Amino acid sequence: MTNLHRHAPLRVALVGLGTVGGGVIRLLQANAELIARRAGCPIQIVAISARDRNKDRGVDLSPYDWVDDMTTLPGRDDVDVVVELIGGADGPALTLARQCLAAGKPFVTANKAMLAHHGLDLATLAEKAGIALKYEAAVAGGIPVIKGMREGAAANEIARVYGILNGTCNYILTTMEKDKRSFDDVLKEAQELGFAEADPSFDIDGIDAAHKLTILASLAFGTELDFDNVATTGIRHVIAADIAEAAALGFRIRLVGMAQNGPEGLFQRVHPMLVPLDHPLAHVDGSLNAVVVEGNFVGRLFFQGRGAGDGPTASAVVADLIDVARDEYGDAFAMPVSALTQQQPADAGARIGRAYLRFKVKDRPGVLAEIAAAMRDAGVSIESMIQRGNHQEDGVLIAIVTHAGEERCVLDTLERLAGSDSLLQTPMVMHILD
Amino acid sequence: MTNLHRHAPLRVALVGLGTVGGGVIRLLQANAELIARRAGCPIQIVAISARDRNKDRGVDLSPYDWVDDMTTLPGRDDVDVVVELIGGADGPALTLARQCLAAGKPFVTANKAMLAHHGLDLATLAEKAGIALKYEAAVAGGIPVIKGMREGAAANEIARVYGILNGTCNYILTTMEKDKRSFDDVLKEAQELGFAEADPSFDIDGIDAAHKLTILASLAFGTELDFDNVATTGIRHVIAADIAEAAALGFRIRLVGMAQNGPEGLFQRVHPMLVPLDHPLAHVDGSLNAVVVEGNFVGRLFFQGRGAGDGPTASAVVADLIDVARDEYGDAFAMPVSALTQQQPADAGARIGRAYLRFKVKDRPGVLAEIAAAMRDAGVSIESMIQRGNHQEDGVLIAIVTHAGEERCVLDTLERLAGSDSLLQTPMVMHILD
Repeated sequence: MTNLHRHAPLRVALVGLGTVGGGVIRLLQANAELIARRAGCPIQIVAISARDRNKDRGVDLSPYDWVDDMTTLPGRDDVDVVVELIGGADGPALTLARQCLAAGKPFVTANKAMLAHHGLDLATLAEKAGIALKYEAAVAGGIPVIKGMREGAAANEIARVYGILNGTCNYILTTMEKDKRSFDDVLKEAQELGFAEADPSFDIDGIDAAHKLTILASLAFGTELDFDNVATTGIRHVIAADIAEAAALGFRIRLVGMAQNGPEGLFQRVHPMLVPLDHPLAHVDGSLNAVVVEGNFVGRLFFQGRGAGDGPTASAVVADLIDVARDEYGDAFAMPVSALTQQQPADAGARIGRAYLRFKVKDRPGVLAEIAAAMRDAGVSIESMIQRGNHQEDGVLIAIVTHAGEERCVLDTLERLAGSDSLLQTPMVMHILD
Repeated sequence: MTNLHRHAPLRVALVGLGTVGGGVIRLLQANAELIARRAGCPIQIVAISARDRNKDRGVDLSPYDWVDDMTTLPGRDDVDVVVELIGGADGPALTLARQCLAAGKPFVTANKAMLAHHGLDLATLAEKAGIALKYEAAVAGGIPVIKGMREGAAANEIARVYGILNGTCNYILTTMEKDKRSFDDVLKEAQELGFAEADPSFDIDGIDAAHKLTILASLAFGTELDFDNVATTGIRHVIAADIAEAAALGFRIRLVGMAQNGPEGLFQRVHPMLVPLDHPLAHVDGSLNAVVVEGNFVGRLFFQGRGAGDGPTASAVVADLIDVARDEYGDAFAMPVSALTQQQPADAGARIGRAYLRFKVKDRPGVLAEIAAAMRDAGVSIESMIQRGNHQEDGVLIAIVTHAGEERCVLDTLERLAGSDSLLQTPMVMHILD
C-alpha cells in the first residue's frame, strides 16, 4: 500500500504518437487532477518519441522532451516507466521492450502482436527485474478484461473464454446485417471512414483477433502463449446471403475468438460463427468488443465496451500507469512464467457442435441429393435447410444447419463433395456458438 | 511484486457460514491448486466461526478450528486475514471489522449494508494500519465491478454509473414480463423457490440496491459514501399492466440504481425505470446483475454476470483474498479517505428526462381532459399515450410517456391531480433511461 506514501510524480516516457499516443496525452492532461487523487501521485509525461517529429497530431507536444533515439529512454533516470504504442510484433517495439525490462524499467504496452509472439520472453525479463509489464490496452481496448481475468476471475477454473475481439470486423458484419450490403461494399466504406486500414488484412483475416485470443487463453488457463496453434479464418468469405439465411434460422454472424481448455488439449480458434439471438454476443453491434469468461464458480461473466479508438485505448493504458503508480501489479500472466503449463493443441475434429454450411450450386436436378448423400455418408445429420428460389444470377444457394456432431464429419462432407461439378464455389462452413 | 517471493500460505479466518461461507469453503477446496499458482501461495482456511456449530452446511468443517467467540480472531497470530460473511450494517459484523482493522488484520467482506453506513470509518482504520479492506463481493456478486471501477476505469472522469443491482427484483420483474403475471404471484413463487427472502423488503423496496449504489457512487466520483441521500423506491407498485404498456411503447421495466455527479451535485436514486429495448440493460434477464459505467475517455463499459448465489459471491471473496496474497491492493475507495470530497445532493426536480405515468381512473367522460389539463398547466408535454378499453374490472388505465422535461413538472402534475375523485389510486411515475 505504498501509494499512501507516494507523492513524487510517476514520470512517463511515451513512445509512438499515433491515435492512441495522442489519446494518452489528452487523457493525462484532461483528467490530471483526478488521476493524481486516484493514483496517489501525479502521472506526468516527461519524454516522447516517434518517427516523425513534424507531423501535426492535434496536441501540444512542447511541454515534453522530444527524443529522436528511443533507445536512450530505458537508461534515463528521470523516467519511471516507458509506454510503447508503436506496434508490430518485432522491430523497434520489441527492441525497446527488451531494453526496458532488462534495465529494470517498468513497461506498459498496447502491443498485442508483440505479446502474442514474445509475451513469455518479456514476462520472464519483467519477473527477473521484479517490475511491471502491463498490457490492458492490448485486448479489447478500454474494457478492463485483462484485469477481469487476471484478478477478477482469478479464483475460477475457466472452461472457456471467447468474444468479439476485433471492432473492424464487427462493424463490417453488423453493417452488412443492418443494411443488407455486400462485404466488399461495406469494407470500402469502412476504409473511407477510417474504420478499416488501407491494408485491412490484419483485421479482416482474423490475425489481430488471434493475437488477442492468445493472450486471453494464457490468462484463462495458466498455459503458455501459443499463437501458432490458433486456427484463424477471417470474414472475407461471408456473403450477404449468409447473414440473411442465418437470420432466418435465428442467428447472427460474428467473428468470434474462442479458447477452451480440457483433457483433450487447448483449443484456440478465430472464425465467423453463428450466434443464437438469445446470446449476449448477438447484441454486440458496430465497433464494440465483448468478452465472455466462463468460470466454474462465477458462471458466465460478460464484459462489453469500446475495443478501439484513442479514448478507450488511452483509458486502458493510463489504468496500467495508475496500477504502476499504486504499486499494485504482479506477474504479467497472472503467475510466474515457470508456473504456466505447456498444453497440447486439441484436435478440432473431435469437437461436438452444430455447423452452418452454405453451398452455391448449379440449378439442376440431383444437386441436393448429391449434397444430402455426402452428408449422410459422412454421418452429418441435418437440422434445418433453406434453399431459395433462383434469385442468384448464376446458381442456387443452399444453407444448412446440422445437428450437433463431430466437426470432422462436416469436413468429411466437404471432402466427399470436393471436385463435384455441381458446386459453383468452395462451400462455406461456420460453426454455431451453443 | 512480493508474490513471487511469497510461499507461506495465506491463512484465513472465515466468519459466517451461510450460503456464501459454504461457497468459499467449497471454492477454496475445489480450486486449491489453481489458486495457489495464481496467488503465489496456497490460501488456507484455518479458523471458522458462526452462530450455530451444529447446523449441517453440506461441507466438511472438521479440518478447521471452530471458534465460538469470533472476537478472538483479530488477535490470533496464525490468522493473516479475516473474511466476514455475517451481514448486517451494525452488530457483530461491525464490531469484528473494527477489531480486525484496529489490530492490523486485513479484512475481506461481502457486507454492503455495513460499507454503505460505515465504509469511511472502516477505510480510515485500514488506511491507518496500512492494510487491506476488500469488498468485491459486496456489489453485483461475482462481477468484478469494484475492481473494474477502482482500477479498470480509474483514468476516467465518470459521468454516471448505473445498473441492475438486485437479482431478486430483476427475477421478479422479468418473470412478470415473460409470464404476464402479477407482482404478488411472482414474489410468492420466488419465496417458495428460495430466490426471495421470507421478509423480502430489503430487496424489493430497493434498500439492498441502494447500499450497493452508495458504494459504486463513491468509487465513481471520488465522493464520500452518502447512503442517506439515495432516493429509494422499490418494485411493489409495479403492476403487470405497467410492464405490458411499457412493452407496447418499446421499453422494459428494470429496477435501476443510478448515480450521477456534476456541478449540480450528487444524484443517487434507486427506482424502477423504463429501459429502451436497444439498451443493454433491457436484455439483462432473470437474477443476473449488470453495471454500466460511463467514462469521459473509455465511453460506456458494460459488465454483466451473476449477482448473487454461493458460487459467484465466493468467486469475488476469493478474488479479494488472491489480491491480498499477491500484495496487490490499496485504498479501499480508490484514494485516501481524506481525498474523497463531500458533495451536496442534487435536486432531482431539475433533472431533465422523459417519464412514464400511469393513472387508474374512473371510466367516465372528462377524466382524460382533467389529466391532460394538469399536465399542460404543469408544463409537461405528452409524447405518447395508451388508454385501453375497459378491461379493468374497476376502472380504466391510462399510460403516458412524456417528452423530456424537468422532473419537477411531473411532480407538479401529480400535485395538481391530488385529491381528484377521478383517480382510483395513487398514480405511478417511472423515469425513462435515455
